[in-house]
Amino acid sequence: MNKKIFLNETDIPREWYNIQADLPTPVPPPLHPGTGQPITPDMLAPIFPMNLIEQEISQERWIKIPHEVLEKLYMWRPSPLYRATNLEKFLDTPARIYYKNEGVSPPGSHKPNTAIPQVYYNKIFGIKRISTETGAGQWGSALSFACNQFDLEAKVYMVRVSYNQKPYRRVMMETWGAKCVPSPSPETSAGKKFFEENPEHPGSLGIAISEAVEDAVTSKDTRYALGSVLNHVLMHQTIIGLEAQKQMAMINKYPNVIIGCCGGGSNFPGLSFPYVRDKIYGRDLQVIACEPTSCPTMTKGPYVYDFGDTAKTTPLLPMHSLGSGFIPAGIHAGGLRYHGMAPLVSRCITDGLIEARAFNQLETFAAGLTWARTEGFIPAPETNHAIASVIEEAKRAKEEGKEKVILFNWSGHGIIDLAAYDAYLAGKLTDYEMPSEEIERLVCDLKRC
Amino acid sequence: MNKKIFLNETDIPREWYNIQADLPTPVPPPLHPGTGQPITPDMLAPIFPMNLIEQEISQERWIKIPHEVLEKLYMWRPSPLYRATNLEKFLDTPARIYYKNEGVSPPGSHKPNTAIPQVYYNKIFGIKRISTETGAGQWGSALSFACNQFDLEAKVYMVRVSYNQKPYRRVMMETWGAKCVPSPSPETSAGKKFFEENPEHPGSLGIAISEAVEDAVTSKDTRYALGSVLNHVLMHQTIIGLEAQKQMAMINKYPNVIIGCCGGGSNFPGLSFPYVRDKIYGRDLQVIACEPTSCPTMTKGPYVYDFGDTAKTTPLLPMHSLGSGFIPAGIHAGGLRYHGMAPLVSRCITDGLIEARAFNQLETFAAGLTWARTEGFIPAPETNHAIASVIEEAKRAKEEGKEKVILFNWSGHGIIDLAAYDAYLAGKLTDYEMPSEEIERLVCDLKRC
Repeated sequence: MNKKIFLNETDIPREWYNIQADLPTPVPPPLHPGTGQPITPDMLAPIFPMNLIEQEISQERWIKIPHEVLEKLYMWRPSPLYRATNLEKFLDTPARIYYKNEGVSPPGSHKPNTAIPQVYYNKIFGIKRISTETGAGQWGSALSFACNQFDLEAKVYMVRVSYNQKPYRRVMMETWGAKCVPSPSPETSAGKKFFEENPEHPGSLGIAISEAVEDAVTSKDTRYALGSVLNHVLMHQTIIGLEAQKQMAMINKYPNVIIGCCGGGSNFPGLSFPYVRDKIYGRDLQVIACEPTSCPTMTKGPYVYDFGDTAKTTPLLPMHSLGSGFIPAGIHAGGLRYHGMAPLVSRCITDGLIEARAFNQLETFAAGLTWARTEGFIPAPETNHAIASVIEEAKRAKEEGKEKVILFNWSGHGIIDLAAYDAYLAGKLTDYEMPSEEIERLVCDLKRC
Repeated sequence: MNKKIFLNETDIPREWYNIQADLPTPVPPPLHPGTGQPITPDMLAPIFPMNLIEQEISQERWIKIPHEVLEKLYMWRPSPLYRATNLEKFLDTPARIYYKNEGVSPPGSHKPNTAIPQVYYNKIFGIKRISTETGAGQWGSALSFACNQFDLEAKVYMVRVSYNQKPYRRVMMETWGAKCVPSPSPETSAGKKFFEENPEHPGSLGIAISEAVEDAVTSKDTRYALGSVLNHVLMHQTIIGLEAQKQMAMINKYPNVIIGCCGGGSNFPGLSFPYVRDKIYGRDLQVIACEPTSCPTMTKGPYVYDFGDTAKTTPLLPMHSLGSGFIPAGIHAGGLRYHGMAPLVSRCITDGLIEARAFNQLETFAAGLTWARTEGFIPAPETNHAIASVIEEAKRAKEEGKEKVILFNWSGHGIIDLAAYDAYLAGKLTDYEMPSEEIERLVCDLKRC
């Protein structure tokens, strides 16, 4: 019985999987907020390079991964598939728990799976510089890493409160040669008005997105990049699930349950979509997306057209949302603090292909600590949501006396988030479950009732 | 051409290599400082369990790795062998650069390779609790991880200045359930006198060792553990080189040059000793140990009998040393700030099997930055010394027009050391080369001239 299953580089998937080709119900198009009409590719051209816009709207099932992208992915891919034998023993469960370890990339998460191809497509389109925003810093560091690999400039607008709280993420970006500034910054007109009001303004993801988009559309040879939500981002991440399918086949296993944490949508659809395809064609399979109770987008948010950003500058997207004005509580799982959800994930939820579960902050850290003390590796606070669900399912398997196969995505390590573990161990963390009356009010606003 | 070579768990080495069986000149015995006579195993019994003392003095060439140890090592071993293709291209060198990535372990370095077996042998000897000291925190976190895996208590005395500067290391230890206190502490008589003098005393490795040893000899069912210098520690690390030999054989390569950084001696002999054996039996091979110019133990220190600790509580060891009273400058490569050198490494140097090179702090960080911007992974400050030497050798290969095969040990990642990169990028780091008159004075003291 091996602890981990490696896949050779020669066996890496050569194509990404595009779930749009198989969805029982197509995803409704993004709408222009002014006209209410579907947006056209050319409307996105000042923001993204056309080759990525084509991927965004493609209905092709398989899209070839360019050789130049594979060469870079080999720096850490294929990622190992692990069996969590120590956790199984600790829980005394008949379940077999497998996980993809996405913490092995240079920035420590799954994010470079899409940062590398995005930068590559920008480069061959002639773009010299990419702007983006980052909250907790995982996406900003992945994009910085990718830009460095392809010799493009990177400019990252980092929400000021995170910039001050997580200096290591900023240093990581700078180590890879990126320029990272706290947002709101005086460098864009979107940032300037907040900055001049208060130079220590804590910022928000909404403001940072506005700054990064403005930078892209006003600077020479510059485009914007996003680390979740969009169709092409989710597609790039499917390499996780495609690898997992090969690795599970090597040990003659097929999962009964697939689990991942889900903020805007990237690592979870990355692992699950190739399996959701099997489910669409009749495979009996449970697919669980995990989120925080403090930001219960999938479990409480209605399926509506809403803006992707707080500043209401993006097209309207069909998705589960708590409203673009919603500011989630300051939990440590910064990557799960998003008011909306990727349209493709949202569609799968409404179609019953994926179910969602919400977890409190304290139970996720308890799960993360159990993990660190059994499997050794210290997980990211986001990943702890998946682990909480895995433990729940493994206990259920024990109650039911079933030898279930659970597969989940270990989306990243928590070495830069140790301050959060410190607070948890010191008893200083709290839960932030949203009161039901607040949820009702948000839902009512969204449905215009 | 693969970027990385994996070894299956079934192909992991089953025995450690003990270089004592092959050394052309045996290592002189440790001496009792009072009597000047060789120390006997029973004198060490209050400090170490007898099974580890037996390993320390064993002359057997191969020592079987227990099944229970292998089961734990599988959590991250066999570690991948990488080819640094991006660095080769950047340097435009005909050299082929390979490296073992030891940053993949849960604590992020090679240290658990010996922490796991040491805790295992303590456990089967009936020990319930282990005390140790840590400077920068790599060893303390590896021992905490290992104690957690075998369900033993861990108590770590961490040099106060590091305890305050590197809170993440402390949190890592606590996440794995260890107790970590700043040293000097009021909890031992060795620490108490310094603590009462000044509760904010910055501490030193010497004081911390004294505290940990006192804790071990005065507490119930407790022993002490050390992360470098001793023969059994070096032997446990040879799994790195034994794996590398198998992986290099898979691609039909044999190195011309072996490189590693070396503080007290653990990762460097771990990679190199299985190859040094080949050299002893006639193989033409260059083996380079790298150290900081601020602590030039191997390049400037004489080969003498000296104490292993600053507090002069250990037996006298035959080694290269700058004197047990020497306090190196506060460079960021904390793991290389040791006044002495493992007796086995020292012997190999005096016998001409290993050569030593010293590097300035700034050139090591320049090398580390080049690495991060080519190979992606951010190296530990200690590892940067090896990388500086690799770059030097790769450039030499280019000058000579030789397709040399260079193999080195990437001993750990630098994610918890990002503050050091921040200082480097901001131009705030300096070199600390030792003035030659200071070295002369130290050497003179040691040789009693």
